[in-house]
Amino acid sequence: MTRRDTPIYTLGELASRLGARLVGDADRRVSGLATLKEAGPDQVAFLANRAYLKDLPDTRAAAVLLHPQHGETCPAARLELDNPYLGYAALSRLLDPLAGREPAGVHLSAVVDPSATLGERVEVGASAVIEAGVILGDDVIVGPGSVVGVDAVIGAGSRLHANVTVCHGVVIGERVILHSGCVIGGDGFGFAHDGSRWHKIAQLGGVVLGDDVEVGSCSSIDRGALGDTLIGNDVKIDSQVQIAHNVQIGDHSALAGCVGIAGSTRVGRHCMLGGGVGLSGHLTICDGVQVTGMSLVTNSITEPGVYSSGTGAMKNAQWRKNAVRFKQLDDIAKRLSRLEKGRDG
Amino acid sequence: MTRRDTPIYTLGELASRLGARLVGDADRRVSGLATLKEAGPDQVAFLANRAYLKDLPDTRAAAVLLHPQHGETCPAARLELDNPYLGYAALSRLLDPLAGREPAGVHLSAVVDPSATLGERVEVGASAVIEAGVILGDDVIVGPGSVVGVDAVIGAGSRLHANVTVCHGVVIGERVILHSGCVIGGDGFGFAHDGSRWHKIAQLGGVVLGDDVEVGSCSSIDRGALGDTLIGNDVKIDSQVQIAHNVQIGDHSALAGCVGIAGSTRVGRHCMLGGGVGLSGHLTICDGVQVTGMSLVTNSITEPGVYSSGTGAMKNAQWRKNAVRFKQLDDIAKRLSRLEKGRDG
Amino acid sequence: MTRRDTPIYTLGELASRLGARLVGDADRRVSGLATLKEAGPDQVAFLANRAYLKDLPDTRAAAVLLHPQHGETCPAARLELDNPYLGYAALSRLLDPLAGREPAGVHLSAVVDPSATLGERVEVGASAVIEAGVILGDDVIVGPGSVVGVDAVIGAGSRLHANVTVCHGVVIGERVILHSGCVIGGDGFGFAHDGSRWHKIAQLGGVVLGDDVEVGSCSSIDRGALGDTLIGNDVKIDSQVQIAHNVQIGDHSALAGCVGIAGSTRVGRHCMLGGGVGLSGHLTICDGVQVTGMSLVTNSITEPGVYSSGTGAMKNAQWRKNAVRFKQLDDIAKRLSRLEKGRDG
Repeated sequence: MTRRDTPIYTLGELASRLGARLVGDADRRVSGLATLKEAGPDQVAFLANRAYLKDLPDTRAAAVLLHPQHGETCPAARLELDNPYLGYAALSRLLDPLAGREPAGVHLSAVVDPSATLGERVEVGASAVIEAGVILGDDVIVGPGSVVGVDAVIGAGSRLHANVTVCHGVVIGERVILHSGCVIGGDGFGFAHDGSRWHKIAQLGGVVLGDDVEVGSCSSIDRGALGDTLIGNDVKIDSQVQIAHNVQIGDHSALAGCVGIAGSTRVGRHCMLGGGVGLSGHLTICDGVQVTGMSLVTNSITEPGVYSSGTGAMKNAQWRKNAVRFKQLDDIAKRLSRLEKGRDG
Repeated sequence: MTRRDTPIYTLGELASRLGARLVGDADRRVSGLATLKEAGPDQVAFLANRAYLKDLPDTRAAAVLLHPQHGETCPAARLELDNPYLGYAALSRLLDPLAGREPAGVHLSAVVDPSATLGERVEVGASAVIEAGVILGDDVIVGPGSVVGVDAVIGAGSRLHANVTVCHGVVIGERVILHSGCVIGGDGFGFAHDGSRWHKIAQLGGVVLGDDVEVGSCSSIDRGALGDTLIGNDVKIDSQVQIAHNVQIGDHSALAGCVGIAGSTRVGRHCMLGGGVGLSGHLTICDGVQVTGMSLVTNSITEPGVYSSGTGAMKNAQWRKNAVRFKQLDDIAKRLSRLEKGRDG
Repeated sequence: MTRRDTPIYTLGELASRLGARLVGDADRRVSGLATLKEAGPDQVAFLANRAYLKDLPDTRAAAVLLHPQHGETCPAARLELDNPYLGYAALSRLLDPLAGREPAGVHLSAVVDPSATLGERVEVGASAVIEAGVILGDDVIVGPGSVVGVDAVIGAGSRLHANVTVCHGVVIGERVILHSGCVIGGDGFGFAHDGSRWHKIAQLGGVVLGDDVEVGSCSSIDRGALGDTLIGNDVKIDSQVQIAHNVQIGDHSALAGCVGIAGSTRVGRHCMLGGGVGLSGHLTICDGVQVTGMSLVTNSITEPGVYSSGTGAMKNAQWRKNAVRFKQLDDIAKRLSRLEKGRDG
């Protein structure tokens, strides 16, 4: 990858790209994004959370992206939008030094099998490997050291960062982002036991990722035993996540870091799993479910809402006493019932 | 790796390889494996779980692998076996398109140190690195981008998928499978504290993996501080698992995804650890122990059986009230005791 | 990497390097480190824990590193130190076969961009990739298959093992050790929701690692959204750890395996997080906090000390009863209060 500087825009260009109303000098040039507190005079800042309103009057930013109702105390030019957080997202992509750079083509040290099909403007980084029968859509970027296995398909505009592994036959949609160290399509964990030892069940299914999926660093999505592991469109998966064979995740769901989902569980659309959440196998989680961090879900969920398990941290001395009592809890409940009966009797 | 089609067998060949009794046309050719519901007329299906018996009468499969007692309602040829789930495992391996392919030799872009010893039919993928003194047994496959460190030994028939790392001096048995992104033999986490800062303890031990071990994507097994970290024969390790220095795992044990085992803990034979289970350091877990998902084990276990900790998920509003009460649990128990004494007194 | 034998020292040299008092033959040559029980006549053993005092009289070691008070029953030469555990750490580094080897230079198969700056005695392994604008300090080792992204800076004496990924613009201090499979600087998990779908927030910040940091196998440290993710000096991070965007970790803190820290949380100096601990986002944890294994911390901690959550494992049959009662806990507490009032009333 070649180096590239932060893009430069005039405020007029930014307003037009963001669909924002500009109050200020349309020709002023800006070249970066920062918080209200840290922005310098060439940068744009944003106000998307009332908690930072106190920083607005003193900002040194060239312009501030904000809701029209907060314009008055702004000492700089204003980019007014009804949803400034969405505007911040758009702005961050416009001002990303990595966006819009020219593709570098196939590096001399990359190994591309002659039977692979490469679209227009494809980039394959140094030491990367593209195996037989692979199809890379237009504008695909495969980072250095990444490996794309036999017959895998990567949709247009997708990007594999460095040292990503996409295994044989995996199908990846368009505009997908795979971060370094992630593995898509390793074998699911399937063995038959004969009473004394394990026999491997070959994992003959694949993995299908929809469009606009993102998978974080060092996450793994295992291939199906027979059918495919299915990740819907616009599913966002953080780092260190494990998705077992034949799991299905509905569109627009988001999984935070360290989530683990066991085999054949189906997660609905618009679900959000907090960091470290575990789902047992063969469950069905309906649309619109949120599970808070480090909860364990062992039963299917049929009603949207927020779910939790576990206990929050406390001082160890206090915790020890309570954790011992947890082991007596059934006994405590029974003793309480007896007392109640005694009173009533 | 080159592409390969699903193998084709006659039913007679399959019956012979599986040791099954065939009821049907021995010359019929089949070329794939699927569920009863999804199998097409060229494929074999299987019935290993009564829950799917309802799908048997309508299957379009060419043949069904099943227990003799279920043969009657089968509309297709039958491959009868006393343990159809084991039969399914064997069948999946026979019909795996990746099985039995010709090894591709050492890729031109692979870097193999002249002092390394390679057995017969060894394959080393593109951009892979084999360092000095390494010994690769017969039929070993090292996937693209994988690195085998100085003096490591890989037993016959073992396979490293893409982007695997085997560190210096690690010893790996025969028929071992290492999935992409896993790391065998990184340093254990050892430091001495001088009251103000940490001093590294060089990790001088190694890792020894027995025969028929499998390690999932992105899992890590750390090298020992002095002696070796020891993984027995036929131990199956899922994805995202962490095994710390000097851990010992007995033969035939299975560890599901996201398990973490702290230093010097010994796990017995035929143990099963559910997803996300954590074992503290310096414990001894006897043979035949099962621990359910996301449980924390902080004491040694001396009796076979099933162990659990934690609480299952519930609605967040309900959970909040109960989690607060957990912090009062010792107090609740004491108050209950006082009430009981009051009644008796 | 080339092979190298365990270094050989005389006891006199070792005493001098360790600052130990030698009782025994200064010219005796030793070449390895082992436990009291396993050390052979060419090796040094150590006694840093009273639990092993029973092994001292029978050791076959050439010399034993120990506290002066334990010298009497030692049958071998003695290296006496007030802190033998620290001495063991120093000794392990002296006797590490990998220490002190000659750097191998830049491998022919490595890809180093012409605009990268390499210090003295830098080693870049086979198939490694150094992108444009990278600066590698003196004595840096980049292992085979590792990738260092555009404009990243690696301080003097740092070592990246095999298949490490350091993303663009990341800044790494001196004497840092990064183990295989770890990823420094992948994107943080940032998206804005428009009511129906996610919009990516480009992660424009970086990651800064201080001096003497160590990061374990398969761990990930995400880059900041705007500012940087900051890891202080002498911070030790084990395997399979996830550190989200804009987290800050104070100097000398240690994080055991499988820890997960959500975005923007600040951890103080000299903190210790046990295996599998989870910290929610936007918390502040003060200096000197210890959290025991697999605890979930959802609130800031302002007082040093030991914190815990969860429940230890018990037999599943017992656990089931108690876990059901946990869901009734608020009800139990209320019933108890009613009973108490009844008694008092």
